[in-house]
Amino acid sequence: MVGGGNDAFIGGVHRIASRIDGRFDLVAGALSSTPEKAQASGAALGLAPDRTYDDFKAMAIREARLKDGIEAVAIVTPNHVHYAAAREFLKRGIHVICDKPLTSTMADAKKLAKVADDSDALFVLTHNYTGYPMMRQAREMVANGDLGNIRLVQVEYVQDWLTQHVEGKQADWRVDPARSGLGGSTGDIGTHAFNLASFVTGLTLDTLSADLQSFVPGRALDDNAHVMMRFEGGARGTLWCSQVAPGNENGLRLRVYGDKGGIEWSQETPTQLWFTPFGEPKRLLTRGGAGTGAAAARVTRIPAGHPEGYLEGFATIYNEAAEAIEAHRDGKQVSKDVLYPTIEDGLQGMRFVDACVRSSKRDAAWVKLAG
Amino acid sequence: MVGGGNDAFIGGVHRIASRIDGRFDLVAGALSSTPEKAQASGAALGLAPDRTYDDFKAMAIREARLKDGIEAVAIVTPNHVHYAAAREFLKRGIHVICDKPLTSTMADAKKLAKVADDSDALFVLTHNYTGYPMMRQAREMVANGDLGNIRLVQVEYVQDWLTQHVEGKQADWRVDPARSGLGGSTGDIGTHAFNLASFVTGLTLDTLSADLQSFVPGRALDDNAHVMMRFEGGARGTLWCSQVAPGNENGLRLRVYGDKGGIEWSQETPTQLWFTPFGEPKRLLTRGGAGTGAAAARVTRIPAGHPEGYLEGFATIYNEAAEAIEAHRDGKQVSKDVLYPTIEDGLQGMRFVDACVRSSKRDAAWVKLAG
Amino acid sequence: MVGGGNDAFIGGVHRIASRIDGRFDLVAGALSSTPEKAQASGAALGLAPDRTYDDFKAMAIREARLKDGIEAVAIVTPNHVHYAAAREFLKRGIHVICDKPLTSTMADAKKLAKVADDSDALFVLTHNYTGYPMMRQAREMVANGDLGNIRLVQVEYVQDWLTQHVEGKQADWRVDPARSGLGGSTGDIGTHAFNLASFVTGLTLDTLSADLQSFVPGRALDDNAHVMMRFEGGARGTLWCSQVAPGNENGLRLRVYGDKGGIEWSQETPTQLWFTPFGEPKRLLTRGGAGTGAAAARVTRIPAGHPEGYLEGFATIYNEAAEAIEAHRDGKQVSKDVLYPTIEDGLQGMRFVDACVRSSKRDAAWVKLAG
Amino acid sequence: MVGGGNDAFIGGVHRIASRIDGRFDLVAGALSSTPEKAQASGAALGLAPDRTYDDFKAMAIREARLKDGIEAVAIVTPNHVHYAAAREFLKRGIHVICDKPLTSTMADAKKLAKVADDSDALFVLTHNYTGYPMMRQAREMVANGDLGNIRLVQVEYVQDWLTQHVEGKQADWRVDPARSGLGGSTGDIGTHAFNLASFVTGLTLDTLSADLQSFVPGRALDDNAHVMMRFEGGARGTLWCSQVAPGNENGLRLRVYGDKGGIEWSQETPTQLWFTPFGEPKRLLTRGGAGTGAAAARVTRIPAGHPEGYLEGFATIYNEAAEAIEAHRDGKQVSKDVLYPTIEDGLQGMRFVDACVRSSKRDAAWVKLAG
Repeated sequence: MVGGGNDAFIGGVHRIASRIDGRFDLVAGALSSTPEKAQASGAALGLAPDRTYDDFKAMAIREARLKDGIEAVAIVTPNHVHYAAAREFLKRGIHVICDKPLTSTMADAKKLAKVADDSDALFVLTHNYTGYPMMRQAREMVANGDLGNIRLVQVEYVQDWLTQHVEGKQADWRVDPARSGLGGSTGDIGTHAFNLASFVTGLTLDTLSADLQSFVPGRALDDNAHVMMRFEGGARGTLWCSQVAPGNENGLRLRVYGDKGGIEWSQETPTQLWFTPFGEPKRLLTRGGAGTGAAAARVTRIPAGHPEGYLEGFATIYNEAAEAIEAHRDGKQVSKDVLYPTIEDGLQGMRFVDACVRSSKRDAAWVKLAG
Repeated sequence: MVGGGNDAFIGGVHRIASRIDGRFDLVAGALSSTPEKAQASGAALGLAPDRTYDDFKAMAIREARLKDGIEAVAIVTPNHVHYAAAREFLKRGIHVICDKPLTSTMADAKKLAKVADDSDALFVLTHNYTGYPMMRQAREMVANGDLGNIRLVQVEYVQDWLTQHVEGKQADWRVDPARSGLGGSTGDIGTHAFNLASFVTGLTLDTLSADLQSFVPGRALDDNAHVMMRFEGGARGTLWCSQVAPGNENGLRLRVYGDKGGIEWSQETPTQLWFTPFGEPKRLLTRGGAGTGAAAARVTRIPAGHPEGYLEGFATIYNEAAEAIEAHRDGKQVSKDVLYPTIEDGLQGMRFVDACVRSSKRDAAWVKLAG
Repeated sequence: MVGGGNDAFIGGVHRIASRIDGRFDLVAGALSSTPEKAQASGAALGLAPDRTYDDFKAMAIREARLKDGIEAVAIVTPNHVHYAAAREFLKRGIHVICDKPLTSTMADAKKLAKVADDSDALFVLTHNYTGYPMMRQAREMVANGDLGNIRLVQVEYVQDWLTQHVEGKQADWRVDPARSGLGGSTGDIGTHAFNLASFVTGLTLDTLSADLQSFVPGRALDDNAHVMMRFEGGARGTLWCSQVAPGNENGLRLRVYGDKGGIEWSQETPTQLWFTPFGEPKRLLTRGGAGTGAAAARVTRIPAGHPEGYLEGFATIYNEAAEAIEAHRDGKQVSKDVLYPTIEDGLQGMRFVDACVRSSKRDAAWVKLAG
Repeated sequence: MVGGGNDAFIGGVHRIASRIDGRFDLVAGALSSTPEKAQASGAALGLAPDRTYDDFKAMAIREARLKDGIEAVAIVTPNHVHYAAAREFLKRGIHVICDKPLTSTMADAKKLAKVADDSDALFVLTHNYTGYPMMRQAREMVANGDLGNIRLVQVEYVQDWLTQHVEGKQADWRVDPARSGLGGSTGDIGTHAFNLASFVTGLTLDTLSADLQSFVPGRALDDNAHVMMRFEGGARGTLWCSQVAPGNENGLRLRVYGDKGGIEWSQETPTQLWFTPFGEPKRLLTRGGAGTGAAAARVTRIPAGHPEGYLEGFATIYNEAAEAIEAHRDGKQVSKDVLYPTIEDGLQGMRFVDACVRSSKRDAAWVKLAG
C-alpha cells in the first residue's frame, strides 16, 4: 500500500476491503511521505520493518526485485500523487489498485493512461459503488432491455460536510487545487456519480452543460455542481453533486428511465432496487431476493434481508481485481462477468471533471468531453 | 363553475375542494362548450336549469345581474380558454378562481393581468400545493432564517403517464399546443414545481438554462425538461419535470438548503417535512406535531398522524379565497396570514414556461424571465 | 348532528366528511348538552335557530314530525351518550350515523342492537379506516385468495398523546370510565384496529388473551394493551394498542399473511399497500395505480400519486351511508359493493373490549367473545 | 473452526467476520463430520493438511498441544453439536466463539455453562445484532435515561423462507428437533430478538405467555410464535418471531418506549435509529452522524452515510472477542466498554425457548424463566 497512514480514512477502507474475501495480504507499504509516520504506521499494521518504506519509488524498486515481492499495490494517497506512484509500479509489472479520481490533472491522467497501456500489469480504479450487487443487477437489467430504450439518467451525490468552512486533514487536501485537482465536489464525488451512471446504463456521454459553484467564501474549488447531460443515442440526464446540502451524508442516488420501465436506487439502502415496468406496480428487488439475476448473485455473500454495505461493495472491487490478477498470472482470459473500473474509466472521469470546469467557465455552454 | 363537465378530472377536484370547508355553494355553471354536455352535467350536479349555461359569457352577463348571482367563479377549462372566460367575469366584478397555468400564451397572460389589475374582483390561481400545511411550515422556517442564507433549491415534478403514446380526453389537450400552450410538461407540472419553490423560498428567479425534450415520437410539446436556475441573491437550483419517468405517479419533491440547515419534502408523504439544522440530527416535522409553527397550524384540520392529502391542500386555497372574498365584501384588509397564488404568480409561471422554451431553442442558453 | 359543539375534534371531522361528496346538508343539531353552547355552536355553523336544539330528544321528536325533517343524524357525543341518543332517532325512523365505539357498556350495546333491529332505519358506525381505498383493495385481495389461507393477522394502533398525565377536554372523557366505558386504549383505538383487521380478513375472532396496563399513575383505564388472538379456522394474530408510545401519532398498521402471500399497510402512507406473492418481489400497490381492482377504484376520487387521506376515507363511510339511505328511500336493495360498519360491527367491537378486560383480569386467560 | 464446510451459510459469515478487522487467522479446522468433506473444505480454505481434522475432539487435543496451536475456535455446527464441541476446547483452555442458540437442549446448556465456568477460557456467543453501532447507541441511551423509565419493549424477527414446505440443507436441520432443539423459530430467531431486546434495555424478563404454532403441515417445530412478556420492574412487551410471513426476509425490529421517549430500529436500515423525546420532533440518528455517542463511535469503521451492514456487526463481535482474548493473554482486565454475548446470555436464550415451549403447552399460561 502507498499512502493510508494511520489517520487516513480511505486507507483503512482499502485495507478492510482487501481482507473481506481473504484474497490479499498486506505485506509492504510506503504509508506516508513523512518517514517517521511511514514507519509508525507500518509498525502499527504489523508490516515487517524491511518492507516498510519511506517512499513509493524505493518500494517499487525493491519489491519488484524480491522473489516474493508484492503482486499488487493499493494507491490511496491524495490525488496529485496517484500518477507518480502508479507509474513506478506499473512500469515494473506490479498491478495497481488506485483510488479515484485517477489523477489531479488531465495531463497526468493522459500520461498515466500511456504508462498503463504500455505495461503488462493491470490497473484497477476503485469506483467502489459499482461493486454493490444491486448496481450489478441494474446494469444487467438495462443490458437485457428491461427498461427499453434509455431516455433519462438522473444521478446525484450529495453531502453536507463542507457546508461551513472546515479545517482538518480530510477537508484540507480536498479543497486544495494543488492536491485535489481542478474539481472539488466534481472530482471527489461527481466522478463517482458519473461513473456509476455510465456503468449501469452503458451510455457514452456526448456533451454536458455545467454550472459550478463555490458557496463557502474563500473556497477555491467547486463545492456544488449542476450538470445537464446529453448522451450518444439521445438519452438526457442531470448530475448534481454537492458538499453543502445539510441533511445529506453520502446521498448517492441513481434513477434511470426508459420507454419500458424505470429503476431507482439510493446508497442509503443499497440492498434495495426499485423497478417499475411501465404500467405495472412498482417492485422492490432486494439483494439475494426474488427476481434478481446472475450478475447480482455473483457478488452476493449473505442471504437476503441482511444488509450488505459499503465495505462489501468495496471488497467486491478487490475481489474482481483478484480474479483478474489470478487470470493474468495463469495466462488466462478473465471471465467477462468480472467487472472492475479501468484506466479508461479513470480517464473518462477526468474528462468529465475537465468538461465541467470548461463548461462552467463558459457560462454553462455545452462542451464535448476531451478526446 | 366554467368547464368541469362530468368526465373532467380537475373539475371534480375543484368541486370537492370548494365543499370541504363549507364556504362555497355550487349554484351555476357553464360546464362544457358542448350545449348538451353542459346541460347534462349541470343536471347531474343539481344545478337549477336556469343557471345552467351553454357558454361562459352568457353566464357572466346573467349572474352579474342576478340579485343573488354568484360571487365567485371557478374556471377549470383547458388552458386556452382561461383568458377569455376569466375576462368576462372579472370585468363584471365576479371573483375568479382559476386553474393553472394562467393561460396558453404569454400574450393572453399579459392581457389577463391587465384585466385583473383593472378589476376590483379578486383573482386566485389554484397552485394547490401551496396549500399543504408543511409547505406553509417550510415557508415560515425559511422566512425565520432557520435555514440561513438559501443556497440551493432542488425541485422536481415527475410523472409517468405519458411514457408511451396515449389517447384520451385527459391526454389529448395536454399535448396539444393550441389548447395547452407552448409548454407541455413545463406548463402542466413545471409551473407547479416552480411556483412551490418560489412560495417556500421567497426567492426571485433571475435566469434559467433549459433543455427540453419530446421523447415520444410525434409529440409536439415537451414531455421532459431539465432546468438550471440562478436566483437573485446568488442561490442556484435545478428543476426537473417529466411525464415519461416510469414509476412516478405525481412525484413532486422540494429540497432547499441554506448555510444553516436544509429541508426536504415529497408530496407522496405530504404531512412530513424533514429538517436538518447543520450539525444536528435530522428531524421529522409532521403536520400538527411537535416543532411546527403557526403558519401550518392555521391550515390544519385534524390531529397529527392522520394523513391530510391533496384535496385538503386544494381546499385550503379555496378557504383562503373565501377569506379574501369575505374581507373584500366587508371592505376590510385581509390578514397577511392569508396566502393564495395571485395573477402575478400566474404571470410568473407563464414567464417561466416562456423562458424554458426560449432557452431550449437556443441550446439551453441562459435567459432572463420576460418582463 | 348530536354532539360536536365547536371545540370537539370529532364533530368537525364528521362535518367535513359529510360534505366532501356533497350528499348531506347539515340542517339541524343538538350540538351540546349545555344549552348556551348548543345555541352558540348552532349559530356558528349556520343552523336555523328553530332547528338548533338543546337536547337530542327534543330534536328527534320535532325533526321526525317536520315535513322536511332530517333523514339521518350523526351522533358524535362521548361514548356514554351514544345509546340514549341513537335510540331516540332510530325509533322514529331517522337513520343514525354514530361514532365508535358503539356505547360505553356492553348492556347499552345490546339494548342499542335491539333498538336497531326493531327499527326500519339504518345504523352506520364510523369505523372510518375501512373507507381507505387500499383497505378495500386488501379486503378484495384476501377474498380473491391472493394471499391463500390466512395464517397471521398483526394489527396495531399506537399513539403517544397520553404518555404523561394530560388534562383537557379531549383527554378527560377518554380516561374516564363513566364516559368512555370499560376500555381505555382498547375502546378508543383498539376497536378501530380490531374492526379493520376483521374487515380486511373476513375472519371471526374466537378467543383472545389480553394483558392490559395503565402505565400512567392514577389512570383508571388501560392506556396500553397486548392481545393475542385465535380466529376461527386456525389463523392467529396479535393486536397492540397504546397511547403511551412516544414517537407514534396515529400509528395504525395492519399486516396479514397467508400461505401464498402477505400484505402490509400503514395509515401514515394510506395510499400504499405492500403485496408480496410468496417467492416473488414485493410490489407496492397504490391507490389508483396499476394492479388495483374494482373495490378500491369504486371509492377513489383523484388520480394516483395524489395522497388521499383520513378525511376522504371518513367521507367514504358517509358516501356509503348515502348510498344505503337512498336505496332505502327508493325501496331498493343496496348494491353489495356498498360497505359500511353496522350495528353488528359495533357489537363485535364491544365484545372485543369486554373480552380484553375480562381476560386481563384473569391474568390473560383465553376468553371467548361474549355472545 | 468446527463446522462450516463449504456449503454452510453461517460458516462463511463467521470467516468473513473474523477477517474484517484483521485480528484472526484461520489456521485449523474440523469443518465437517464427514471426513471427505472435511478434507475438501479444508483444502478449499487453504488450511494445512495436518491442521485439517476429521473430528473436533482430535482437533482440540492436537491444537492444545501445538506450540502455536489455535488460541480460539469458532463453532458453527448445527445446534446439537455445540455442547460437545465447545466442551473439548474449553476444557483445554481454548477460547470458544460459538454460534447461537447455545445448545439444542436445556440440559446441554446447563452442562456447557458448568464447563465454561470451570474453564479459564472465554466463551463468546455470536448474537451478532448486538454488534450494530446503533444498537450500542440505543443501549447507551437507555442506560443514560434518555427514554426515562422503560415501559414497553416490542421486538420482532420475521422471515418468510419456511412459508411452504422446504427441503435442503439449511432448512432440514432447522426444522428437526433432534438437531435444532425444542424451539423452531423461537430458537433460531426468537433468541436473537430476545437477546437484542435484553441487550438494549438491560431489563430482566420475569414471566412470559407464549402461543406457538407450526403452520406448515408435518412440521415438528414452531414456525411462528407470539409471546407476551413481563419484565422485572414493571415493563411489558411482546415478541413475535415467524418464518412464515411472506414479504419478510430478515425483519428484525426493535421498539422501546419509556415515560420520556422512544426509540425504533429495523435491521433493514441498521445505520438509522429513530429517537423521539416525548413532546419533541422525531430525530433520525445515524451511525457516525450528529447526536450519537461514544458507544456507537467505538464500533464504527467508516463515515456516516456509508451503510455498514450485517457482516460488520458480526465482525464487531469478533473484534470484541479479540479484545477480551488479548486482555486475557496479557492478564489484564478487559475494558468495560467491550461488550459481547456470554455463556449467561446463551443460557438466558435457552431459558427463553424453554419457557416459550412450556407456556405454549399450557395454553399460553404465564411461566417464569427456569433458574
